[in-house]
Amino acid sequence: MNESESTALMSLLRTQPVASLATLHKGAPAVSMVPFALLPEGAGFAIHVSRLATHTQDMLANPAVALLVTAPLAAADSPLALPRASVQGRARQCATDSPGYEQARQAYLARLPDAEPLFSFGDFSLFVIEPESLRHVAGFGRAMSLAGEQMRAVLRQAD
Amino acid sequence: MNESESTALMSLLRTQPVASLATLHKGAPAVSMVPFALLPEGAGFAIHVSRLATHTQDMLANPAVALLVTAPLAAADSPLALPRASVQGRARQCATDSPGYEQARQAYLARLPDAEPLFSFGDFSLFVIEPESLRHVAGFGRAMSLAGEQMRAVLRQAD
Repeated sequence: MNESESTALMSLLRTQPVASLATLHKGAPAVSMVPFALLPEGAGFAIHVSRLATHTQDMLANPAVALLVTAPLAAADSPLALPRASVQGRARQCATDSPGYEQARQAYLARLPDAEPLFSFGDFSLFVIEPESLRHVAGFGRAMSLAGEQMRAVLRQAD
Repeated sequence: MNESESTALMSLLRTQPVASLATLHKGAPAVSMVPFALLPEGAGFAIHVSRLATHTQDMLANPAVALLVTAPLAAADSPLALPRASVQGRARQCATDSPGYEQARQAYLARLPDAEPLFSFGDFSLFVIEPESLRHVAGFGRAMSLAGEQMRAVLRQAD
């Protein structure tokens, strides 16, 4: 991935505050909207979800998830060519006393300050989505896949 | 679902030309962007996809899918409260000689005229996503689920 491609990818991930989260629900795929924030050090994505929500139960039952971030319609001449990034990864609940909690909470609230009151709700908790692979479609027919250290090196540009 | 709720839902589904499609990929959830159009008579959603794309192979291997349509950021004061609609359903390839093909093609091209040249590509085909249930989140804490005839009655308002 060259510099202009990674700049475009990081701009997409930094400017869009919501993603589509795919989970496995009783053996079938399900998809819901989640506000998200990029974590420092290429560690992935933080989401803050309610235990009462189906996607949370899904992640606790099966940590395999996927996340899609799509650019707004104004970003391309045609909806067919909208830039987007999708991630395959694993969701891990981040307990309030775990080492990465405070960093994830700060990254999330820096991006989504409106969520602050939800941190006092007992049913909400932070999950970290650790990416295993990432696919960036920059436009029509312009797709690129990343994984492992190459992917983390690009995501670390958020720092 | 009262009239103002169903009007808001249909406005969302009519004005947004892209959705997030969740499929089952080798047992794990995957999610990708798809342009889509509402079909007449509450029949569901049309998408036009390439055989070369992973989501198409996923749908052919397992027709269980989910679709999410999210309002643009400008539609709410906070990203946390963005209106969105998600559907659980089944994807069915729509052959060019099948009864519903011409209607689905016309609905799709009315919404996405840029896609016209793709209909001459041999690897692209129409799929119909037949919804089994639908969940509409109109704002923070304002969610409603629909299924069966009640859902189809709302979707028929697209006609």
